[in-house]
Amino acid sequence: MKIGILGSGIVAKTIAGKLASLGHAVKLGTRDPRATLARSEPDMAGGPPLRTWLETRPEITLVPFSEAAAHGEWVVNALSGEGSLPALALAGEANLASKVLLDISNPLDFSRGMPPSLTVANTDSLGESIQRAYPRTKVVKTLNTVNAFLMVEPGQLAGGDHTMFVCGDDAPSKAEVTRLLKEGFGWKEVIDLGDLSNARATEMYVVLWARLYGATKDPMFNVKVVRAT
Amino acid sequence: MKIGILGSGIVAKTIAGKLASLGHAVKLGTRDPRATLARSEPDMAGGPPLRTWLETRPEITLVPFSEAAAHGEWVVNALSGEGSLPALALAGEANLASKVLLDISNPLDFSRGMPPSLTVANTDSLGESIQRAYPRTKVVKTLNTVNAFLMVEPGQLAGGDHTMFVCGDDAPSKAEVTRLLKEGFGWKEVIDLGDLSNARATEMYVVLWARLYGATKDPMFNVKVVRAT
Repeated sequence: MKIGILGSGIVAKTIAGKLASLGHAVKLGTRDPRATLARSEPDMAGGPPLRTWLETRPEITLVPFSEAAAHGEWVVNALSGEGSLPALALAGEANLASKVLLDISNPLDFSRGMPPSLTVANTDSLGESIQRAYPRTKVVKTLNTVNAFLMVEPGQLAGGDHTMFVCGDDAPSKAEVTRLLKEGFGWKEVIDLGDLSNARATEMYVVLWARLYGATKDPMFNVKVVRAT
Repeated sequence: MKIGILGSGIVAKTIAGKLASLGHAVKLGTRDPRATLARSEPDMAGGPPLRTWLETRPEITLVPFSEAAAHGEWVVNALSGEGSLPALALAGEANLASKVLLDISNPLDFSRGMPPSLTVANTDSLGESIQRAYPRTKVVKTLNTVNAFLMVEPGQLAGGDHTMFVCGDDAPSKAEVTRLLKEGFGWKEVIDLGDLSNARATEMYVVLWARLYGATKDPMFNVKVVRAT
């Protein structure tokens, strides 16, 4: 499948690398490819800058947001919370219409320092904000509750015995995304929370995630929903 | 130990019954004991009304909020979110000062229907609101992330292989509460998130809890924090 990934950070790279390894035709979208390729500093996890990373993955190209979105049969929002709506505007409504938009972003607000609060919460969510802005797009919220490395390789932790959530208003899109999560990425349990208003819940959970990270100092963790039945 | 429990609902009854069974001297506090005892309807879980429940537990007495708080060396806030601050005002600052206040409440807002949102979230929490109102009291937030039956008998689910959180500004109080959770109630893992601002995280998690309950229809679940190390 052709997939356009919006973003050039760790989440975008990790998702892009995994999807390419599964045989998908991936384009990474950024605001200004030349400026992004000019960066020489390591990424936030100490990994290589994007230009070095791309040199070893000739099958992945870096293009403007609009070109990545136009390329994709699916589009992945792997941007920061504050970057999401501006980038989607540049991607263009027509390039997003009728497509699945896999939304991984979190509306993190670092303006008060660490740990972050959220820019939107409780009675709204970033996922719903995106859906309202692009009503013809099928937003599926998922993967925003773990770090990038666990997103695509959940088996790295406890043999994959932990839980991913998915929500969205379009049931067939959710089912297709869930299949990718399970068959492509290796998630053993994916709980469908229901409609996209559940993005409030998974985004608000990220506040607990950030504080657990602060308490344990290791981002390689997740929650498993333990049920009686 | 003498413990005053504020509340007369399922959480209050369940915590009171467990603490009494552990040998603690428990008084339940309510606004108007006569009015509470006059109720004849079952509780929200289909259990007996409080007066019937109390008949089988002569060691537990129902008294006004102020008397329960005055009785307790520890006080437990087992009230609803909206009921908490008014009841604490009736309990009286002097009766709460210098004591551990185990805060189990959640600031649930049902005014928009189900599932609930929160009346306070993100940059503040009910736990912190209570601490600000009673600065001499040592507020420890815990147990608000599971249903009443799991609070006191975590071993009912998966042999207790799931996680409880605790937070608060007074480290010795947190340590004592954690000991009660582990040795008294049987919690195997209690993660100390840090200061009381972490109540934002555990209260916001309850939005996910409510939606998981909606998706799974069974309240007997919890999360286990799965870690690499």
